[in-house]
Amino acid sequence: MGVLVVGSVALDSVQTPFGAVENVLGGSASYFSTAASFFTEVSLVGVVGDDFPSEAIALFREREINIDGLEQVPGRTFRWRGQYRYDLNEAITLETQLNVFESFRPKLPLAYQESPYVFLANIDPELQLDVLNQVKRPKLVACDTMNFWIQGKLEALKAVLQRVDLLTINEGEARQLAQEPNIVKAAHRILDMGPKVLIVKRGEYGALMFSDSTMFFAPAYPLETVYDPTGAGDSFAGGFMGYLANVDAVSEESMRQAIIMGSTMASFNVESFSLERLRTLTYPEIRERFRAFRSLVTFADLPETT
Amino acid sequence: MGVLVVGSVALDSVQTPFGAVENVLGGSASYFSTAASFFTEVSLVGVVGDDFPSEAIALFREREINIDGLEQVPGRTFRWRGQYRYDLNEAITLETQLNVFESFRPKLPLAYQESPYVFLANIDPELQLDVLNQVKRPKLVACDTMNFWIQGKLEALKAVLQRVDLLTINEGEARQLAQEPNIVKAAHRILDMGPKVLIVKRGEYGALMFSDSTMFFAPAYPLETVYDPTGAGDSFAGGFMGYLANVDAVSEESMRQAIIMGSTMASFNVESFSLERLRTLTYPEIRERFRAFRSLVTFADLPETT
Repeated sequence: MGVLVVGSVALDSVQTPFGAVENVLGGSASYFSTAASFFTEVSLVGVVGDDFPSEAIALFREREINIDGLEQVPGRTFRWRGQYRYDLNEAITLETQLNVFESFRPKLPLAYQESPYVFLANIDPELQLDVLNQVKRPKLVACDTMNFWIQGKLEALKAVLQRVDLLTINEGEARQLAQEPNIVKAAHRILDMGPKVLIVKRGEYGALMFSDSTMFFAPAYPLETVYDPTGAGDSFAGGFMGYLANVDAVSEESMRQAIIMGSTMASFNVESFSLERLRTLTYPEIRERFRAFRSLVTFADLPETT
Repeated sequence: MGVLVVGSVALDSVQTPFGAVENVLGGSASYFSTAASFFTEVSLVGVVGDDFPSEAIALFREREINIDGLEQVPGRTFRWRGQYRYDLNEAITLETQLNVFESFRPKLPLAYQESPYVFLANIDPELQLDVLNQVKRPKLVACDTMNFWIQGKLEALKAVLQRVDLLTINEGEARQLAQEPNIVKAAHRILDMGPKVLIVKRGEYGALMFSDSTMFFAPAYPLETVYDPTGAGDSFAGGFMGYLANVDAVSEESMRQAIIMGSTMASFNVESFSLERLRTLTYPEIRERFRAFRSLVTFADLPETT
């Protein structure tokens, strides 16, 4: 069982209160793939320019990510420059260069079209639709989006939402999409737009999962060392989808575990810049943190007599 | 086993996006006592003016709260006027009239001095010290504080912290007190100031409990109906201390349950203005929501084979 991801592969320059890096591997598909690769086969669809460094390709190969769908074309790779202040919840974008991403049209290699688990990372909803038209009966399709598409491409986004099983979205963007400040009401309005499951991401405050009749809360792991939040949401999605593909079961129970696995991967990712922490991660470390999440939230029931 | 609380008893005027009330019962000791009264005997110490309405006294009596320590003196009761916008996390104070609270010196009735559980609500740390000098070997002393005292009475506050077992504090104020933006590091700095346990309150994002070697996270219950957040922190503390006094055991396990009970009481309190929701609450409703919290955070462990 494998996961297909379509999204950006980028060179990021990031500054946080704890340091700065220039032109390091980033992009939603890079974070997603690396996180998911601990659990399942991953097929990546994206585009890079002729300036894309061979070390980044080597990292994908190390993690045994299938990059047959990663096109390399003349021109410069997508670049993002951003900054975080002490409130690490909010990225300040200093510069976005779409470069080769501007004319990106996802083309799925034949072998990718049967992927049972599909993640449409945060890209133009028209491209997300292109991908949906190329896959055959997946078991679960999830997508991400952002304020830019909610404002600029709402109709295409709504068409995507009618065709996906699950949406992951930031809390503020959920409110914006639903036009409703209360997050529980907003969640149910979004579920009415199509997805059966909604995951609301709250940064360092964790994530909420909603279905029509259930609600699940996962904290973010409280960490002493947060160097760079870039990619946390995509590492989360990678851990989530990778775990689901691994157990190959879509149920309330497996999705709850998958959310904790997503939170686990995000918690490691923010401990270093770019993909530095994920590339050295081991499965025993992952299992240990998953269990630390259990200990973080576990409490006993009330005695029957009360 | 009973709980003693010292704090404000006030008449509040509050405006939220969902309505407004004028001169309704409020104040930290009122919210705390009412919440705690579902679990244990409560002894209240505070002061009101000769304008204090008899209906408010009647509410305390309905909940069987001991108000022998509630002085009534000539003058006007403490008044607070505040407002919440759609971001219900932040109160905007429009007016504070200390009135009779300005010359308040807590005097504990003899019968109160043996109280095993003591909560020093958010008042001048010098008054908190006065109270500590009047109680005899309590099993657990907890206190609350705020930015105003951190800025203006830091030395007295530090003296209080050396004599309490547990501090509850808002997240931003924890950072301010510790002078450290990372909340895990901030928590450990505050534990070094004296308390054995720290509870960091995050409003609609729940609460974190820290000890030297443990960490526990409780979500806030995601609600469709939040009318008025006033008193959420004090209802939380009342549920927490009331539950601990009821089981009369201070352990990691009982404190985890107590935090969820605090979150339960806070979740009811915000469903209406003033104490309207708590006064009509029943124990079966409390138990049901406590269990809803369990279902909100429960997930299965990883299979042994992975």
